[in-house]
Amino acid sequence: MKFSRLVFDIDGVIYRGRDFIPGVPEVLREISREHEIYLLTNNSTRHREDYVRRFLQEGIEIEKERVFTSASVTAEFIFESFGKRRIFPVGEEGLERELREAGHEVLDLSADPGEIEAVAVGMDRGVNYEKISLASRAVRRGAMLIATNQDVTFPSERGLEPGAGSILASIEAASGRKADIVIGKPSPFMLSFIRKRIEAEDEEILIIGDRLDTDIASGKALNLRTALVLTGITSKTDLNKIPEEDRPDYVFEDLRELLKFLKER
Amino acid sequence: MKFSRLVFDIDGVIYRGRDFIPGVPEVLREISREHEIYLLTNNSTRHREDYVRRFLQEGIEIEKERVFTSASVTAEFIFESFGKRRIFPVGEEGLERELREAGHEVLDLSADPGEIEAVAVGMDRGVNYEKISLASRAVRRGAMLIATNQDVTFPSERGLEPGAGSILASIEAASGRKADIVIGKPSPFMLSFIRKRIEAEDEEILIIGDRLDTDIASGKALNLRTALVLTGITSKTDLNKIPEEDRPDYVFEDLRELLKFLKER
Repeated sequence: MKFSRLVFDIDGVIYRGRDFIPGVPEVLREISREHEIYLLTNNSTRHREDYVRRFLQEGIEIEKERVFTSASVTAEFIFESFGKRRIFPVGEEGLERELREAGHEVLDLSADPGEIEAVAVGMDRGVNYEKISLASRAVRRGAMLIATNQDVTFPSERGLEPGAGSILASIEAASGRKADIVIGKPSPFMLSFIRKRIEAEDEEILIIGDRLDTDIASGKALNLRTALVLTGITSKTDLNKIPEEDRPDYVFEDLRELLKFLKER
Repeated sequence: MKFSRLVFDIDGVIYRGRDFIPGVPEVLREISREHEIYLLTNNSTRHREDYVRRFLQEGIEIEKERVFTSASVTAEFIFESFGKRRIFPVGEEGLERELREAGHEVLDLSADPGEIEAVAVGMDRGVNYEKISLASRAVRRGAMLIATNQDVTFPSERGLEPGAGSILASIEAASGRKADIVIGKPSPFMLSFIRKRIEAEDEEILIIGDRLDTDIASGKALNLRTALVLTGITSKTDLNKIPEEDRPDYVFEDLRELLKFLKER
């Protein structure tokens, strides 16, 4: 069976930092002519439309509904499981917008800890003592603690910067409670959420990522076919260090090689 | 032998919140006539002179050299062990002043991570993303990570607020390293530091605290005589739950009872 649905991790596969990896837009334009493309990222700071707009600038059309960020999945997961909630976000604008658009009421620092039903934690360059304090006191009083992801760092020009997982650690310590659920990779939750939205047989789906421990592992956990590209974190030598059963079904130097593979099938 | 040196934990023994426990100033004035008083607190936000001044308002004279905060001990410990260091403090004004007065160079957010030799973490109501980021990047590059204390919360009118331990958790997560040393209780470090400053036989020293798990435990770890007062965290029923050997030498309802005991000895 041909792969008709391709799920791309963004960082290390399509983007390096904030920019497209050179050559990738051309390849994606060609792939998207004959395949349905889905996008997946742990980044919780941006709204899905940011990706839609940026991809369109490169001539790649992708609907918002095929973009999944840890923030959008967090927002929709809470709504599907518990209905509309009063949520205090520790995160940036992307998270706030996703929560609001999923139907939630978004609270701010003026809220009373008692009225907060859930705390959603993402990466937040505006985090401060007051946010950590309000979030912790709400969680201590019984609010759900939901993490968009648990990445303790992310790379920037300044070096490794604190990520959502670092902010989460502080709230967990102060509230005396661990997160009730972590949405983003390496938890297979996000991919399983996407899987449900794809109307296709498992055999038609290919997961494309740059990390063995997150992208490939969560694809394999769901029994989906996986492809590793070597443009990001994982190198060829990393591959040889792990047991046969943890290895991806395919390994490609870059997306150009993936395109060739798809054409030849 | 008579107890001539009395080491008081401040919170729960002398203060409740920011105020003296009613009746305590009178008792302390009387005790200090015939005994040397030492003060000890995990609170890293205030300078020792704040305590000296506040005690003086109540007619109790105490030299700065007999007040030990987790911030002052942190500052002196680093100086004694490593000499003058370039330190980035994640803390409030009390910590900064203690570091400076101990002889260190205090760096701020304009510093480069490479020039920071040590990060000192205390409680900081002004903590923000930039501070956590700079601290984490410095620690990742090899700066020492020293915690004034590891208290994850402290009580306030608003409920339990995030403490130094909560801020530390975030830096530990983002730097991938645990604190090299934690100065404050329950680590016996602070009390052992004070012990060295007291010129007296062990038998002359009495440690007075309100917590079994911190004050009493660290006193016992140093083989010093300990007295529990019931004006703070620990209650009489807590006492019965622990093995004989972990119990304090004396238990007093309050400092008035301690005074009576000292007079009768």
